[in-house]
Amino acid sequence: MKRLYAAEVFQKDVKNVLVKGWVHNINCIGKVAFVQLRDRTGIIQIVTDDVAVRDLRLEMSIEVKGEKAINDKAPSGAEIHADSISILGRACYDMLPFEINRGRIRASLENQLDHRTISLRPPKMRAIFKVQQEIEEAFRNYLRGNGFTQIHTPKIISSSTEGGSEMFTVDFFGRRAFLAQSPQFYKQMMVGAGFERVFEIAPAYRAELHNTWRHLSEYISMDVEMGFIDGADDLMDLEESYINYLLQHLKSTCKTELEMYGVSLPEKVEIPRIQLREAQQILLERFGKKSPAGGIDAEGEKLFSDYVKETYGSDFVFLTKYPVSKRPMYTMPDPDEPDMTQSFDLIYKGLEITTGGQRIHDYEMLRQNIIKFGLDPECFSFYLNSFRYGMPPHGGFAIGLERITMKILDLANIRETTLFPRDIKRLEP
Amino acid sequence: MKRLYAAEVFQKDVKNVLVKGWVHNINCIGKVAFVQLRDRTGIIQIVTDDVAVRDLRLEMSIEVKGEKAINDKAPSGAEIHADSISILGRACYDMLPFEINRGRIRASLENQLDHRTISLRPPKMRAIFKVQQEIEEAFRNYLRGNGFTQIHTPKIISSSTEGGSEMFTVDFFGRRAFLAQSPQFYKQMMVGAGFERVFEIAPAYRAELHNTWRHLSEYISMDVEMGFIDGADDLMDLEESYINYLLQHLKSTCKTELEMYGVSLPEKVEIPRIQLREAQQILLERFGKKSPAGGIDAEGEKLFSDYVKETYGSDFVFLTKYPVSKRPMYTMPDPDEPDMTQSFDLIYKGLEITTGGQRIHDYEMLRQNIIKFGLDPECFSFYLNSFRYGMPPHGGFAIGLERITMKILDLANIRETTLFPRDIKRLEP
Repeated sequence: MKRLYAAEVFQKDVKNVLVKGWVHNINCIGKVAFVQLRDRTGIIQIVTDDVAVRDLRLEMSIEVKGEKAINDKAPSGAEIHADSISILGRACYDMLPFEINRGRIRASLENQLDHRTISLRPPKMRAIFKVQQEIEEAFRNYLRGNGFTQIHTPKIISSSTEGGSEMFTVDFFGRRAFLAQSPQFYKQMMVGAGFERVFEIAPAYRAELHNTWRHLSEYISMDVEMGFIDGADDLMDLEESYINYLLQHLKSTCKTELEMYGVSLPEKVEIPRIQLREAQQILLERFGKKSPAGGIDAEGEKLFSDYVKETYGSDFVFLTKYPVSKRPMYTMPDPDEPDMTQSFDLIYKGLEITTGGQRIHDYEMLRQNIIKFGLDPECFSFYLNSFRYGMPPHGGFAIGLERITMKILDLANIRETTLFPRDIKRLEP
Repeated sequence: MKRLYAAEVFQKDVKNVLVKGWVHNINCIGKVAFVQLRDRTGIIQIVTDDVAVRDLRLEMSIEVKGEKAINDKAPSGAEIHADSISILGRACYDMLPFEINRGRIRASLENQLDHRTISLRPPKMRAIFKVQQEIEEAFRNYLRGNGFTQIHTPKIISSSTEGGSEMFTVDFFGRRAFLAQSPQFYKQMMVGAGFERVFEIAPAYRAELHNTWRHLSEYISMDVEMGFIDGADDLMDLEESYINYLLQHLKSTCKTELEMYGVSLPEKVEIPRIQLREAQQILLERFGKKSPAGGIDAEGEKLFSDYVKETYGSDFVFLTKYPVSKRPMYTMPDPDEPDMTQSFDLIYKGLEITTGGQRIHDYEMLRQNIIKFGLDPECFSFYLNSFRYGMPPHGGFAIGLERITMKILDLANIRETTLFPRDIKRLEP
């Protein structure tokens, strides 16, 4: 007999059914026993007798054969009168780490992360990753539909892309190597290699010493890079289109999951583009909030997001024209103001989820800029040399997959959006 | 004016056109100059005069405005009579590393890999990655369509999954960590976490000291894991279905690319499943080829593939029932022959592209097996403990993305299918 999923039992016109899943709950009323069986699609009620459930324990995996019966009082509208119940996967615990069949899990996030095989079993917990999967799927579909090639670039690299120190070191056959903070150099080179439009969805690494609600040591970066652009506005246009595509995609693929989290998404967004210095000015004038030179801090991002929401009705805002001193050496200066750059951040509900910008494409200009930043062109030779052969004007951006997931679902900690988070304190499970 | 791509010029009914791309070739016949402009879609001929091309060099990126004219003699059936040509990206070289506009690149693979921004510019080189992208896309589409969830698991891990020594070490905030050889433990745990069916497409790492045509230190592993299976045949059924889906997908999405490499794919494959010991027997009897205990070597894989092709007409063959001693500690023993396992390899055109099998799902059995393999259960506690809570029967497999790409296109070296390969000698570019 073919296995039926919990969500199919009510819909399908069948008499005898075979279901498989985990024992979500057991209730005995006199000699009648009710077992809630949970599989990847939902929960179905099994009706049997007290003897048949004697060997069952919560969270065992079982197989049930029986007859379907319509029952308005059963959670899914149907139940199964069991003919046989057999154990597929035994339970070998004294106590579960925490209860998972009583609505919200009453355990610290740390405890939940320590027991991922258990803490993800409630459907609402797995829903986060359905939404995450569809965010990524929308990114890929949207870009593929616009002529972008998906690429894979190495995560073991020989030198820093940003000149930063926050990199993990790897022993690569006796050589000192690093884990890539981003595919920056490689995605630019692949634009130049003739793909023109590329994207990558892959892990990125930050050896940051702080441990916050919004940082991970290993995260998934959705990177895009596009050639033959006219300026940073082309990139913001692209990201805004993607965001709109994403909203529609989530509405059609994640209705149930969004409802679980009480999230309603806007029909369409038009994302304001505001210069950083104007944002700093507004923060100062409206909120008495002073910003650090060339940026705004986490509190500023939050305040400014609230202001944008109130003024423009948008959860998103592009901050543009960051100063040269605050951006990496490959960032294209603004043609009108050489101290400023053709770059931007995207802030979503008070959190930066994207950094992007136009890059320098001229060999000589890039070489001079590397020197101006106090770096040695020799250390970047494989990257720099690829600019000798007619690199077109280009730029791109990256979206942190976990960050956008967290913000869409209004979650409090980025670790909730990661199956197995890595941070300064966590290397297991 | 909106940019038109080379491949669109002939088709579209337009008079004035704007094209952008790289200078693929320049020819002057008297005062008339022909420039071949190459973009991501193909090559279009530009007609101008000898003065206008004076500043042009091969591989510069340029922008051309002009009038379209139909010309049977032009490579793409149309050409552009240029009104203006402007340089977008300058050339700053004395000589190109090698010529790329004369059919095959006449340079060693090493030299090509050193200059990836140049060596990928010929359309035939980039075609490899179009095929690769579609292999991956087919994997994802097929599995999503069958209820699998795409997951991301950490690549920085605390312990070996296979008990092997060939791992790269990472300094993780002062702790010794490793780069994952595979997502094995994590994908199993996510089956147990209630996703039931998961897949992952992500880098995997092997610190192998040898340097061969078929090994990479960093490669893309397409991993799948499925719960509530009856045995290894369910997994081979799944992989065989995917292979058939893939063949159709490639035929419809990569027609041009497959033609470039002279590849014709079969309509449908039925993949023979042959026990390892039978394969060893055949190798001995037919070819006088002795195999190592519990496996067949690279030469044996090649010979046996030829035999299968001749006998069954199949480029693929599953080798089944590897001995317990040759498989990792989590492999499910065969119920009828406890020294054998429920595992398999998939050999394609003489090369192993997949290892898979059913896993042990019972906590006590797994614990005993870890001890039997001379390992310490304490070292695997986060993995082992997740088997306490009703892990269902499950199994999976992994396909090396570069290996299957190489074999589909009949390429000689796996590095040709990698944008930036990593091996014992290569950490750059």
